[in-house]
Amino acid sequence: MKNKKLWGGRFSDATSQITEQISASLHFDVRLYKHDIQGSIAHARMLANQGMLTQDDCNAIIKGLQTIQKEIEEGTFPFNEKLEDIHMNIEARLTELIDEAGKRLHTARSRNDQVVTDVRLYLKDEIKDIQKLCVDLIQKLIKKAQENKQVIMPGYTHMQIAQPVRFSHHLMVYAWAYLRDLKRLRFAFSTADVLPLGSGALAGVNYATDRHYVAKELEFGTVAHNSMDAVSDRDFIADFLYFAAMAGMHSSRLAEDLIVWSTAEFNFIKLCDSVTTGSSIMPQKRNPDIAELIRGKTGRLYGNLISLLTVLKGLPMSYNRDLQEDKEPLFDSIDTVKLVFKGMAEMIEHMTVNEDITKKAIYKNFSTATDVADYLVMKGIAFRQAHEIVGSVVKYCEKNNKNFFSLPLEELKKFSEKFDADIYEYLDPEKSTERKKSYGSTSLDSIENQIKLLIEQLHEFNH
Amino acid sequence: MKNKKLWGGRFSDATSQITEQISASLHFDVRLYKHDIQGSIAHARMLANQGMLTQDDCNAIIKGLQTIQKEIEEGTFPFNEKLEDIHMNIEARLTELIDEAGKRLHTARSRNDQVVTDVRLYLKDEIKDIQKLCVDLIQKLIKKAQENKQVIMPGYTHMQIAQPVRFSHHLMVYAWAYLRDLKRLRFAFSTADVLPLGSGALAGVNYATDRHYVAKELEFGTVAHNSMDAVSDRDFIADFLYFAAMAGMHSSRLAEDLIVWSTAEFNFIKLCDSVTTGSSIMPQKRNPDIAELIRGKTGRLYGNLISLLTVLKGLPMSYNRDLQEDKEPLFDSIDTVKLVFKGMAEMIEHMTVNEDITKKAIYKNFSTATDVADYLVMKGIAFRQAHEIVGSVVKYCEKNNKNFFSLPLEELKKFSEKFDADIYEYLDPEKSTERKKSYGSTSLDSIENQIKLLIEQLHEFNH
Amino acid sequence: MKNKKLWGGRFSDATSQITEQISASLHFDVRLYKHDIQGSIAHARMLANQGMLTQDDCNAIIKGLQTIQKEIEEGTFPFNEKLEDIHMNIEARLTELIDEAGKRLHTARSRNDQVVTDVRLYLKDEIKDIQKLCVDLIQKLIKKAQENKQVIMPGYTHMQIAQPVRFSHHLMVYAWAYLRDLKRLRFAFSTADVLPLGSGALAGVNYATDRHYVAKELEFGTVAHNSMDAVSDRDFIADFLYFAAMAGMHSSRLAEDLIVWSTAEFNFIKLCDSVTTGSSIMPQKRNPDIAELIRGKTGRLYGNLISLLTVLKGLPMSYNRDLQEDKEPLFDSIDTVKLVFKGMAEMIEHMTVNEDITKKAIYKNFSTATDVADYLVMKGIAFRQAHEIVGSVVKYCEKNNKNFFSLPLEELKKFSEKFDADIYEYLDPEKSTERKKSYGSTSLDSIENQIKLLIEQLHEFNH
Amino acid sequence: MKNKKLWGGRFSDATSQITEQISASLHFDVRLYKHDIQGSIAHARMLANQGMLTQDDCNAIIKGLQTIQKEIEEGTFPFNEKLEDIHMNIEARLTELIDEAGKRLHTARSRNDQVVTDVRLYLKDEIKDIQKLCVDLIQKLIKKAQENKQVIMPGYTHMQIAQPVRFSHHLMVYAWAYLRDLKRLRFAFSTADVLPLGSGALAGVNYATDRHYVAKELEFGTVAHNSMDAVSDRDFIADFLYFAAMAGMHSSRLAEDLIVWSTAEFNFIKLCDSVTTGSSIMPQKRNPDIAELIRGKTGRLYGNLISLLTVLKGLPMSYNRDLQEDKEPLFDSIDTVKLVFKGMAEMIEHMTVNEDITKKAIYKNFSTATDVADYLVMKGIAFRQAHEIVGSVVKYCEKNNKNFFSLPLEELKKFSEKFDADIYEYLDPEKSTERKKSYGSTSLDSIENQIKLLIEQLHEFNH
Repeated sequence: MKNKKLWGGRFSDATSQITEQISASLHFDVRLYKHDIQGSIAHARMLANQGMLTQDDCNAIIKGLQTIQKEIEEGTFPFNEKLEDIHMNIEARLTELIDEAGKRLHTARSRNDQVVTDVRLYLKDEIKDIQKLCVDLIQKLIKKAQENKQVIMPGYTHMQIAQPVRFSHHLMVYAWAYLRDLKRLRFAFSTADVLPLGSGALAGVNYATDRHYVAKELEFGTVAHNSMDAVSDRDFIADFLYFAAMAGMHSSRLAEDLIVWSTAEFNFIKLCDSVTTGSSIMPQKRNPDIAELIRGKTGRLYGNLISLLTVLKGLPMSYNRDLQEDKEPLFDSIDTVKLVFKGMAEMIEHMTVNEDITKKAIYKNFSTATDVADYLVMKGIAFRQAHEIVGSVVKYCEKNNKNFFSLPLEELKKFSEKFDADIYEYLDPEKSTERKKSYGSTSLDSIENQIKLLIEQLHEFNH
Repeated sequence: MKNKKLWGGRFSDATSQITEQISASLHFDVRLYKHDIQGSIAHARMLANQGMLTQDDCNAIIKGLQTIQKEIEEGTFPFNEKLEDIHMNIEARLTELIDEAGKRLHTARSRNDQVVTDVRLYLKDEIKDIQKLCVDLIQKLIKKAQENKQVIMPGYTHMQIAQPVRFSHHLMVYAWAYLRDLKRLRFAFSTADVLPLGSGALAGVNYATDRHYVAKELEFGTVAHNSMDAVSDRDFIADFLYFAAMAGMHSSRLAEDLIVWSTAEFNFIKLCDSVTTGSSIMPQKRNPDIAELIRGKTGRLYGNLISLLTVLKGLPMSYNRDLQEDKEPLFDSIDTVKLVFKGMAEMIEHMTVNEDITKKAIYKNFSTATDVADYLVMKGIAFRQAHEIVGSVVKYCEKNNKNFFSLPLEELKKFSEKFDADIYEYLDPEKSTERKKSYGSTSLDSIENQIKLLIEQLHEFNH
Repeated sequence: MKNKKLWGGRFSDATSQITEQISASLHFDVRLYKHDIQGSIAHARMLANQGMLTQDDCNAIIKGLQTIQKEIEEGTFPFNEKLEDIHMNIEARLTELIDEAGKRLHTARSRNDQVVTDVRLYLKDEIKDIQKLCVDLIQKLIKKAQENKQVIMPGYTHMQIAQPVRFSHHLMVYAWAYLRDLKRLRFAFSTADVLPLGSGALAGVNYATDRHYVAKELEFGTVAHNSMDAVSDRDFIADFLYFAAMAGMHSSRLAEDLIVWSTAEFNFIKLCDSVTTGSSIMPQKRNPDIAELIRGKTGRLYGNLISLLTVLKGLPMSYNRDLQEDKEPLFDSIDTVKLVFKGMAEMIEHMTVNEDITKKAIYKNFSTATDVADYLVMKGIAFRQAHEIVGSVVKYCEKNNKNFFSLPLEELKKFSEKFDADIYEYLDPEKSTERKKSYGSTSLDSIENQIKLLIEQLHEFNH
Repeated sequence: MKNKKLWGGRFSDATSQITEQISASLHFDVRLYKHDIQGSIAHARMLANQGMLTQDDCNAIIKGLQTIQKEIEEGTFPFNEKLEDIHMNIEARLTELIDEAGKRLHTARSRNDQVVTDVRLYLKDEIKDIQKLCVDLIQKLIKKAQENKQVIMPGYTHMQIAQPVRFSHHLMVYAWAYLRDLKRLRFAFSTADVLPLGSGALAGVNYATDRHYVAKELEFGTVAHNSMDAVSDRDFIADFLYFAAMAGMHSSRLAEDLIVWSTAEFNFIKLCDSVTTGSSIMPQKRNPDIAELIRGKTGRLYGNLISLLTVLKGLPMSYNRDLQEDKEPLFDSIDTVKLVFKGMAEMIEHMTVNEDITKKAIYKNFSTATDVADYLVMKGIAFRQAHEIVGSVVKYCEKNNKNFFSLPLEELKKFSEKFDADIYEYLDPEKSTERKKSYGSTSLDSIENQIKLLIEQLHEFNH
């Protein structure tokens, strides 16, 4: 029983090797060290305030914990795999450093409430960083949209050229999507912002603690009102994983657009060298690897969400060890979403638009057919009929290999007497975007308006 | 070309049978009929206001649509599978009923913006119903908690008896969890509450429409600011599916508790006959089928979320037909979550607690061992040492088959000199819950406090 | 207690309405009627053989069941929602028709083994149909590959033009992928091919039954060896759902290729009118909807798999009502995978390749750069150095806007003295495919070889 | 450009820091080093055989690679993060060690085919280990079943006591389930057992290579017949991840049983100290952590499957960088499934059954009610009627608090005249299992038969 556990009083046999392997978490929960120490310091101060710890002991604990933090950050901390996790490592080291006082720290709390407090503290800090990265990405999208306000390109539905749109309008779609992600992130923050510490193992503790003091020290917005909920609730992690899955989904769509636009066939944009890579065999290749990796990383973001949801399915109250499986998906989604935002921002910032090519492309696939139908409506024809007429014109052009945009008036008139000389204004794809008069459309005014609105709405996330 | 499509002007060949089968959606989108009509009426009024439709045409359209609604509700509507979806069915019937005017309705909108408007309208209505069901379930949990405030039972971690808790404390965990679900539902409502109509196919429309008027008519909080985002954004569905997955997850945990408590071995509760079923072969069986089905239905709620996330992964801008696959998971999760909330409420309302049995159960597994350790702390021993001492007492009792709760003082003193006559107060499991002094604990005061708080917080969802 | 259940002997109160709603399965399990009757007939014959049923009763049962089948198929069967499922509906009707004898049928089996037997029987039949559809799709891919053996197109990695390949080589990738799906389907068949009937509720039955006789009657390969496993094992459904998810995944990749190739920018293929659809607003549109829907349907195929896996996670032995949730995902994946195979076969069969355009496309992006590097290797340069040299040529061409394929020899020689007149053979993209000498390459011989092999391997699935 | 990439010839700017971060794979693909070296040696030998490399160069390469393997295993290898992955690290080091010859190794292959070859080689080795662990677990289940053949316990459906079964019968369910997993594992091996090497980037290579020789050297069963399929197919990984998800699912069910049986309320088994752990706060706790962690790890096994399926959804041909995301889920599922099998085997091996308690438990919940119904059938009553009669007896006992197992004959006769003195044989729960005469039942003979059969079937996996 050399490697006796801190909880080993009632046990006769040591844990087996496989037990240690399967329950080991030090290799991933080590990243919680700072927040574990932060939480313990607040707990110690509260114990001292409440007279459950002498001021001397409290000071010793704080000093000990600060020493430990320094040791960890300087790489001199004596990690011991046998001690299961970062919390037990710190606890054991503290007792080593300050003896008896260290053992008193563990009054009025358990690992159940301690660990989940650390995770909440840690996640709240990470969310702040991630919010900054998301805001930065949105700003880069806005900037790129502003720089390219005059650029016209084909708008697609079903990946078929539908109607001319502004490049900026297309980019702004993603700015709006990421704004929604910021709201999801804020929601995740709000569910994380609840203090569990002091709930004990599940029932509360036998001490007149002051949990509201601890909450204030640690800057938690609220205190958990139910101790069993406090130790078994992982909703806040799910909320974050869901945010990350959605941010990944949006990024996969933008990445897909960038990849398609970077093909030789579309050739709408050029990604800079710094975000593309070559091939070990094909000397000419210049691949949009970052966009592909971002698209691919959606996989792990979805997987992490399903992973936690699976763990929680059918789990009885209250704390069960299954819950240890909450951390790796969380940490992985945190790391991934940061990479995704940074990588995307880098690509957007440095990409250039091949304006000549996007403009030429709007002359394909009868891109103003809808404008022509609207022209007929203006001349008094019901839309459904107008649609039918223009459909026939399209068919005629295809069959006879005619240029739709410059079809002679006499030919047009065969399809409807309503066609007149002013039709060429409507056929011109370069004028199409400015004909869009509805709110939220792809006209210049409308784009300037949405950029203004988005910048305003971004303010509340930008601090 | 007998079954010519409304969009068929430029096509030479009819769609094949498999195309019709694979793209058919009438069998599930028929449930949108009311909201489709509602949306069309608002659109017609706007067109008339803006002078794009005569008042006569507008009236004819509204009357026609009202006739159609009546036909559908009375079962006399001539559904035509060949017309793909409910929207085309209504459009075709309208033209049949009022001719030319019907064809004019389709000015300044496309199916892309129309369908997603219908889904948003529909979902907003459903969310209101679901919110009511969730509030009702929470109230039933609170009521059952209040009725059983005096009932003491074992609290579990790792499904091992940990410390005595109040039955009400355990039930309230789920009330808090469902409160968080209400917040998720409110979030989903907020993302659904945006009007896409008037965005056209993707670029906006060539008409001076008044989308803000339409939004007001249809009671949308906002108007979509980017027309491409409007037709391709399905975040609001994902947000709902995520809410449903979480509500399902919480329900699966509560169901698991109910199932375990209903076993012959636990026997903590009795579910009423009306929510249990028998066996076709075993005459004695009385099975908690509803709890099991609720637990099982988590599967489809998770599956529906993954289904939509998969559809959206890597999808380029803007509308793609893949998006038709958004509806069935949504409809299924709506139906399922309603069943889950109703079924759970029914079970909770009518279950009875076997108070004698739960009380007897707290005398198992040394349920006051932590209280004893805390006793030693009070006597000056550091918690880690106290823990070790009590661990040894436990081991001693197990080995020698002694009753922990009434171990003679002289035997206790062998483990620590600090033990005194007052220890029996701490050993008594029936007094354990009231010793829990911390905020949020399982003491009676604390439970009354959390019930009061929850009822207050519920107010904002209860209207 | 008017709607008394067949299992209701020990119950005092009727089931509540929500219980009936939540446990209802008739609306989806009705499709098992034929296999339920088939299973019951085999069971009755066995009971008669074993002397547990008179021959008269057996005959009456068989006749009654045949009447029921006719009633269902002719639409005259008196379905009763209150009777929960198709099995109880048939049982009740049988007793109505033949009285006492009908009640004897339910000896030596329970619904637990009966229902899962029906599902296995049903699935085995569906697998046979699905196998045929998959074989048909592969054959259409092979045929299209054979018809277009001479067509050369760019091969892509990272969606960047990499090296010229044959169109047939590209198509054959999917033929091979679907062949692997056939193997998955065969595996799923093998796990479905086990008879559970006769296992009773979980423990076996008190009768000297002959389960091997029943297995033979129903053409099951094996009999379940453990009665508890028999009633709780749903692996065979998971195996099918996994097959369907993989087939969906492969189809989503092929669909993506078809969609990209159908863009105005690529324009490599033309899908026939019968598998494309138009737009309600844009008269010119011709959208690859079927390909998009197939790509989108991957979502439900993944969702269905996750749905069942979630249901099964952490479920204790043996039968639990959660297992009723196995059927809807199964039925949906069966229907979906059939649509996907049929839709894909239709698209492949009728698509045409724009050979001129694919050939022109290989002159982009330095598609023979690797060939040039290999040329240098042939001249004695190590591959890594050759790669570096050709990389510099590429950079030079880009910078100076030179045509790589016809760069004058003197310019090439600036990069390496090894370049000689024979280099132009290697620069020519139309000759690139035939230079690929390795097994499995894109050369004509190699393609003919793989087609031959695939046809051979297909034999074992083609009956 | 100091950290120039090996593919950097045509690039002007260095990759940015975020590009390096997001595309880094060395930290996880380092575990492929041995198989990368193994593959390269086989490739070098083939090149030499085919005259594409001198024997001297070949020898130098092999020696160099062996040195590298030694360096890695001894911890002296100079890893360079800038070199992206393990393959480039080895390549760069080889060139450092043996200069020119090292650069010649990269003839006739690309990273696309090289990396996936390494993964296949690696996975095949891991599958062999995992198969051994699975066989070992099955053998431990069999052994425990054999040791406890006489132990009778309640069998459950819906977690309600249904009928008495043998403990061994219950355990054997999992042995059969794991046998099915072995078949899934064998299937995954068969799809992994295909050599991609020599397919080049996607089109094959310009050299007369001998891929069949390489396949033989590396012990692959087949050679990929289509070079594009070879570089883009990840089915074999999905097949393994699916196996792992299913094995995890089965393990989660067994873990759930073990956890429930370990509760104070059931108390059917005792897990040994070495697989249980204590609590940091509650001195008495002895928690089945390993079982809980195994149950929880199902989450990541499902998540990893969804992760890869998501990556592959809608991915166009052929190699895309998204595919780099295949490795981490694979490696994690390999590690996890090994832990799960080892942990489960340890728990099963050392658990003991509380035989007295399981026997007492069968006297609950009218466990022989079905036997009594069958008794009445034997006396000529139709099963449905018998079921109804026994249901009434049950209701009577419950209402009047009577002991079902010893109800006086006169009271029984009130429910049916058919009851006679021999009924007590049928009421006795200890005799119930031996009354089960059907094949696959819970009788002793039947269990011995299934154990024999399973051992036989295990032979083909046990080498």
